[in-house]
Order: sequence, then structure tokens, then C-alpha cells
Amino acid sequence: MLKPEIRSEIELNAKQNIQNKKISPIDQYKEAVHSRPTLLFRQVYNYLIEKLAQGTWKEHEKLPSVRSLSEELHVHRLTVFKAYQLLKDTGRIYVKEKSGYYAFPMTKKEYPLPNHLEYHPPENFLLGSDQYSFSQALVDPTLLPNRYFSEYAKKVFDIYPKVLSTYSSVQGDEELRSVLSVYFANTHQLYLEPDNILITTGAQQGIDLITRAFVRQGDYVLIERPTYHAAITIFEDQGAQLIPIDIHAEGYNLAAVEEQMIRYQPRVFYINPTFHNPTGHTIPASQRKKVVELAEKYQCLVVEDDSFRDIYFGDTAPPPPVASYDTEGWVVYIRSFSKYAAPGLRIAALCTHSPRMNALMNYKYRMDNGAPLLNQKVFLLYLASERLTGHLEKLRTALCLRKEAMEQELYQAGWSWDSPKGGLSLWVKLPAFAGDTQSIMERCRQNNVVFSPGIAHDSLRQMDRYIRLSYSFMNEDQIRKGMKILIEAVREGHQDVTDVP
Amino acid sequence: MLKPEIRSEIELNAKQNIQNKKISPIDQYKEAVHSRPTLLFRQVYNYLIEKLAQGTWKEHEKLPSVRSLSEELHVHRLTVFKAYQLLKDTGRIYVKEKSGYYAFPMTKKEYPLPNHLEYHPPENFLLGSDQYSFSQALVDPTLLPNRYFSEYAKKVFDIYPKVLSTYSSVQGDEELRSVLSVYFANTHQLYLEPDNILITTGAQQGIDLITRAFVRQGDYVLIERPTYHAAITIFEDQGAQLIPIDIHAEGYNLAAVEEQMIRYQPRVFYINPTFHNPTGHTIPASQRKKVVELAEKYQCLVVEDDSFRDIYFGDTAPPPPVASYDTEGWVVYIRSFSKYAAPGLRIAALCTHSPRMNALMNYKYRMDNGAPLLNQKVFLLYLASERLTGHLEKLRTALCLRKEAMEQELYQAGWSWDSPKGGLSLWVKLPAFAGDTQSIMERCRQNNVVFSPGIAHDSLRQMDRYIRLSYSFMNEDQIRKGMKILIEAVREGHQDVTDVP
Repeated sequence: MLKPEIRSEIELNAKQNIQNKKISPIDQYKEAVHSRPTLLFRQVYNYLIEKLAQGTWKEHEKLPSVRSLSEELHVHRLTVFKAYQLLKDTGRIYVKEKSGYYAFPMTKKEYPLPNHLEYHPPENFLLGSDQYSFSQALVDPTLLPNRYFSEYAKKVFDIYPKVLSTYSSVQGDEELRSVLSVYFANTHQLYLEPDNILITTGAQQGIDLITRAFVRQGDYVLIERPTYHAAITIFEDQGAQLIPIDIHAEGYNLAAVEEQMIRYQPRVFYINPTFHNPTGHTIPASQRKKVVELAEKYQCLVVEDDSFRDIYFGDTAPPPPVASYDTEGWVVYIRSFSKYAAPGLRIAALCTHSPRMNALMNYKYRMDNGAPLLNQKVFLLYLASERLTGHLEKLRTALCLRKEAMEQELYQAGWSWDSPKGGLSLWVKLPAFAGDTQSIMERCRQNNVVFSPGIAHDSLRQMDRYIRLSYSFMNEDQIRKGMKILIEAVREGHQDVTDVP
Repeated sequence: MLKPEIRSEIELNAKQNIQNKKISPIDQYKEAVHSRPTLLFRQVYNYLIEKLAQGTWKEHEKLPSVRSLSEELHVHRLTVFKAYQLLKDTGRIYVKEKSGYYAFPMTKKEYPLPNHLEYHPPENFLLGSDQYSFSQALVDPTLLPNRYFSEYAKKVFDIYPKVLSTYSSVQGDEELRSVLSVYFANTHQLYLEPDNILITTGAQQGIDLITRAFVRQGDYVLIERPTYHAAITIFEDQGAQLIPIDIHAEGYNLAAVEEQMIRYQPRVFYINPTFHNPTGHTIPASQRKKVVELAEKYQCLVVEDDSFRDIYFGDTAPPPPVASYDTEGWVVYIRSFSKYAAPGLRIAALCTHSPRMNALMNYKYRMDNGAPLLNQKVFLLYLASERLTGHLEKLRTALCLRKEAMEQELYQAGWSWDSPKGGLSLWVKLPAFAGDTQSIMERCRQNNVVFSPGIAHDSLRQMDRYIRLSYSFMNEDQIRKGMKILIEAVREGHQDVTDVP
């Protein structure tokens, strides 16, 4: 039944591919991104996805064997096998050894990201004394150098009296980009021209820009598991197929990364290798170089989101970014800056080599025609001063104390987690006796405690035994109080369950 | 040859349409936007576009007759007729009465928008004394209340000392949205709740947001001809098919608008009805209500870009916006604000009714998670003061003088144009003897004069006998000097041509 359509479409795609000629290299790249032929196994996959969505197979019901499906669809068994593999890798089905493939209880659509994670809180999000937020990986405003920034902002108007009369260029203020290129060379072992830097309105805009410029409907994207929840949303919204790569305290299983690169020829590998959100893990220096080698070998763009580098505990700064090993231009580096100093400025730098820069600037132009100049100039003055270093030292100490307060509460409760050497959050495993996350969240919310559930950070929506607890937003006293409520809510839930006659 | 594929695809689409159920109204809307079946005539159109791109028919060569093509493709003659109609409406072919359809000399791809229009100039775009820019519809920074804004910015830090420590909400600062809702009611006859307003980083981001949320590859979009060049870029980039609607001093031909709405069921009608860019025309109040009625009747979203309302010459303010007639939520209103006061702030308001607001906020979240709070607060203080009115009065007078200086030069040269009653630019017809725009632009650039060519404002890329001259960026003296150079360059070109033996 499926066969004639598949065949004719493949023929059509092959024809279209031959017709691509006489175009510039950048257009060629774009064209290649746009016009990948729909592979046969992909069409079988789409066919199965639709069947799963229709409920053809119930939860935990067995799917047809590879052999029988290949006969039904008149395609090779290997084609069905690859389609099943993709369904497994994207969390739609699971395998039982020597038995076959089974449908997962929920399709993704029925299990969306929790709504409250979609948006940041409004500007009046300073909590009341009886409210405890562990869900926001934001720094407590009382820890930020607000007074200094008022001064810098006033100074900007003295130095650039017409700063509000003009636009920035699309790429961003040239002075700021020059200072950043020196800063990156001195501190990141990252050697960039100002033209390799694009100023974005926050790191999230960087991810969105890259996605619009380089990811098309149906493209594969490797993504860490767990990962930053907004990245999942942005890639999925573009129609990407997310292939998860587990991240551990020791880093990635690089053989598995290579295997998935061979299998799916992914367009992008999105990584957050330094004080990873949410786990806090840091990919060792030895693996960083190899990630770049894999990217070059399989022509997969590595998108390195480096938002937590500044927050390390102890004396040792983290290893240089993955981007510092890049010589062939296969890494796009996103460096959030204002997060730890003045989040309201929304300044991040996106670093990459031309001609990718041109494609990104085209979208930046459409999106907002360049970041507001005032914000860039305020940040420039701050970055050019010596105050950044002093502020970050104090901030690290304050955050470390908060982390320790949270860890003490968890330790006393007997919970388990990997203690991170940096970042803003703990990735905590719920105790075995805990009920489901949904009801824990509900009970916590009734007691004014919020946290981020594990499934929000998992493209497979399965990590429901984990929660992310951020220690950056509240002081030690609030953290201790909030944690006691949270731990009690989990215990109570357990009693509710065991009390049932 | 084409027939079996077309048939099976239509059947498939029909099936998919039936399967859309059990989804929320907003998802239903999204779904409908995404999954429009590819109509048969559209497939014939795509087939012909490909042939045209391949050069199957040379410039001005006749295409097959409707009858012969319908026989070749095994489709109804009306289907071929509709495909030809679309090719004609999108500027790919033209008709000779009683003869047939002919290929246009250039495909769009071979005639892209001029590169220099893609980006705004860098922040140091203040011109040297020997440079004359008529290409930027920006206000001369010396006409802007820079000193006041320095004061407001400093005041913001006194009133909100932690303004840089926090994010705005995705929708924008609530105080600013409240003040805007009062402002719109008092001055625009536009009655909105703060929740109907979304703060964007400039009007262009508003267009991009709407395009991402509501326009899909292949959707039809009605667009004025001529129009704002960035809007053409943004819609085309999303894969929209642009159907031009001529704009005249008297307004639109509403019968033609209705005809195109019936024919193409467009997703969006993008309009700039008040001191239209580039012509300066204003759609009369009597037509505004009818545009809304058509939008409701044919379920076509009207996107009203209202960037020039504040700049009127004489005593009469323009009629209320088209959006003020909207009762059913079929208009999205984009109001640029900072352009005439502090363009560097990049503040615009996008107004629409829920549930469209939700879809737009989803994209705003992905894009930048909300406009920077500092910029919104600075604008809030200015808007809440009485200074805006006083500033705009002075600005109108200054710009009117500049317009008159430009018009005097044109008048003396004997050129023709419609004198606008507001806005920042003149839409000028080149004299009959003038050479092609490309060489005029080249000669002007050698003499440090730049302007915006007509084709950049035309989705059909055909209005090469017009140019847009902005009078907002230079003072009268510079305008006179620059105009003399421009007019001389056109004359010289003429002599070059007539001098050829």
C-alpha cells in the first residue's frame, strides 16, 4: 500500500538533487540543508509514528516483527530495522531482548513540557518570604552588582550622548566585539576576530538563530540527556528529530556519539559541556578535542552552550571550551555573559566562522535588526573595567555556600546526587519510595515550593525519577526551609501511598 | 506523468484532514495552518515554476496553451488556468491579450534585493559632510531628544535600582503595557487590555513573529505594492507566495482585494495604511472599515504596520488605525514607538486578541525571552511624561521643512511625485529619459549619494522606474546639495546614452 508513493517520491528527490547547480557555496549549503531527500527508512518511520499516534498499538503492546512489516510494506528488512531503531532512539518504542519492539505508554504529544517552564517569571518575581523557588536557574538579584551598573549606565550617556538615537549594527557593537575578542583570547584560549562574534539578546536567542539558519524539518539533532529544557523546545519546534546522548560524570560515551553520527548524519550536536545544566557535569579536556574531531569527520555542527563557566567552586577554573579545539569551523560557541552580572541586559556572544556568520546575521536581521545599543555599551564599560573579576569571586563564594546548605538537607534526608563543581543546580534522584513527580509537584506547590521536574530536561520525557533543584535564587536560610518542606512532601506522598488499605 | 502523484497526495491530504481531532482550539488553528492540503492547481504551479527555473522557456517565450498543458498533465483546464493566474500574479509570466502567456525576463532568484538594503548601517553611520543618504528612513539624531532620554535612563535606576537584575516577562513590562493601553484608548480609538499587548524589539520583530506563528511554506500573503522591503524579505524567507495589491493615493481597489482573497484564501494581508512606506499614501477612513469586513469574511489576518502615524504635516492627524474597526480579532496591530524619540531603545507594541497572543508569545519566548527591561522602563518614563507631544510637534515641523526642500529640487528638475501628507520619504518617478536604475545608483554612489531603488519595494521586482528618497536623515542644506548631485547624475546618464553614436 505504501510502496508506490515511496518509490515515486524517492525518484523525485533524486531528480531534484541532480538539478542543484550553478549556485554559490553558501546557497549550496543552504540548499543541502533544505533538500535532503526523504530516506526510505524515514518514510517507514513516519508511517509508524502516525500509526502510534492513532493508537494502533496500545501501551506496552508488541509491534509487528521486522520481517512481517517489511513484507507488508514491500521494503527491505534493514529499512524496517532502521525505522525501529529511530523509534527507539527517540523514545517512541522500547526493545525487549529476544522478544521484539513494544509501544511506550505515552506519545510525546500527550506528555508536553510542563507549562510553567515555558516562560520566565514576570519582573516582579521576587518571592514572598513564604515562597521557595528551586525551579529558576537565575542568580538572586541581591548578589548582583546593581549599584555599579547604575553608574555604568549613566556613564554611557556621558560618553555616547546619542546612544539612543542610533541602531547598533546587526552583528553588534564593534567596540564590544573587539573587547570580547581580546577577552576570549586571554581567558578562553579562543582566538577570534571581532567579525567572528555576533551579539545576541541572551543565549536562548543564539540557539534559536542557529536552529533557524541550519536545522530543517526532519533533520537529526544530537542532544545531551538530560539537557536545557528550552533547547528541547526550540529544536522540536523546528521539526528536528532529537537523538539523545547520555552525559555522565566522566563525560560522553564517545563511541556511542560516533555511532549516532554515522547512523543519523545529524545536522547539529547541542552540548553544554561545562557545569552542564542540569547535572553539573563537566566534560574532561581529553574528550573535548575528540568531540571536535568527530564533528569534523561527520560534518556535524557542534553547538556549544557555555553559560555556567564563570561559576566554579574551589580554585580550579574549568578546561577551555570545546570551541578552543576547533580549527575547521565546526563549532558554534554561545557564551552567555550578563547572567552573572546584569541578566536584564540580555547580552550573549555567538562565535563562529564565516560563512556561517552570514546565515546567522540574515536571521538576526529579520528577528530584531541587532541588539539594542544601550545595553551593549553598558556591558562594554563593565567588561572593560576590572570589576567583573572581583564580582565573580564573591558570587562564587556565595553560591557555594548556598549549594552546601542544599546538600546538607539532602544528605540528612538520605537522598542521592552527584555534587557538582560548578553551576547553579543539583540534579537529584528521588528516593525509591517517592511517588510520581506530578503529585510531588502538586503537593510542593500547595506549600509554595517549586522545582523543575526531570522530564522537562529529557527529550525522551522519561527521566521522571529526577528533579532539578537550583540553589542560586534563594539565600541559605530560605533554601533550608524550602528543602525541609520539599523533603517532607515526598515523605508524605509515600505515606499516602502506603496508607491505602 | 504528473497525474498519479498528484492524485495520491490529494487523497493523503484528505485523510490527514479527517484525522485532526481532539485538539485544543489553538492547536487546531496551528494544525490548520500547517496542514493545508496541497491543491491541484498549486502542484501544477510548482511544476511550472521548476520548468521556468530550468529555463525551459526563454525570456518572452510563449508558454504552452491552457488546453495543451491540461491534456499533457491530465488535469482540468481550469486547474491550468488557475496555475497560470498565480504565475501571473506573482510576476513570473505575463499575458498578451488574445495571444497567451509569456515568460518574464528574469526569475526572482536572479534578481535579488540589493545587498545594501539587507542591513541597517553600523552605529557610526553619521555621514561625512560630503555624503548624502536618501536611502534610510531614519530620523536625523540631531532632531531627537537625546538629553531628555539620558535623564530618564538615570531616573530609571533611581526608581528601579534592580532593573538590570531581572528579566522582563515574555510579554513585556506590565507597567508599560498598562500605560500603552490607556494611551491607545485616548489617542487611537483602540481599546485594549494590557494582555492584548506584546512588547517587541522593533516593528520588524513584530512582522517576523507573526510570520513564524501564522505563515507556513506555500501560504499566500497579500502585500501592498510597493511596500516595506524588509517585509518582503521576511515573508519570502518563510516560503510565502506574495500576491501584490496596488496602493494608490485614493487607497486600494477593494474589489481587487476581495477577488484575490477569494482566489487565494490568503493567510495574511500586510498593510501600512497610514503614510505608507514608500508612497506616503493614507488609506481613507471609509476603506478602513471595509478592509476589516473583508478580513472577517475571508478569515484573512490583517497585519497593520503603523510606523509613521506620528509624522503628519499640517494640522490634521490621520484617521484611526484599521485595527480600531476590528471587533472579531482579525487585525494584528504593530505600532513602532521609539523610531521618533529614541530608535536605539527598539520598542514597539504588537496588539492582538488571544488566542493569537499565545502563539506569538511562544515565538517571542524562543526568540529572546522578552525585551530587555531597562529599555522598556526608559520608554515608560518618557511616555508617561508630557514631553512626547511637545517633541513630536517640533519634529513634524522640522521634517516638513526638509520635505519641502527636497520637493523644491524635484520641482525645478521637472520630476513627478505625489506629495505625501506625512511620513519620511518621497516615492519619485524617474523622468522618461532616465537610464536604468542600476547605473543611476552606481553613478550616484560614486558621488556619495545613496537612495533606495523601486524594485526593492516591489514583490514583483518590476518597479524600476521609481526610487524612494527619504528626507528625514539630512538637514535642508544637505538635502539640496545631495538632490542636485542625484538629478545631475540622472541627466548625465541620459547624455551618455544619447551620446552613443
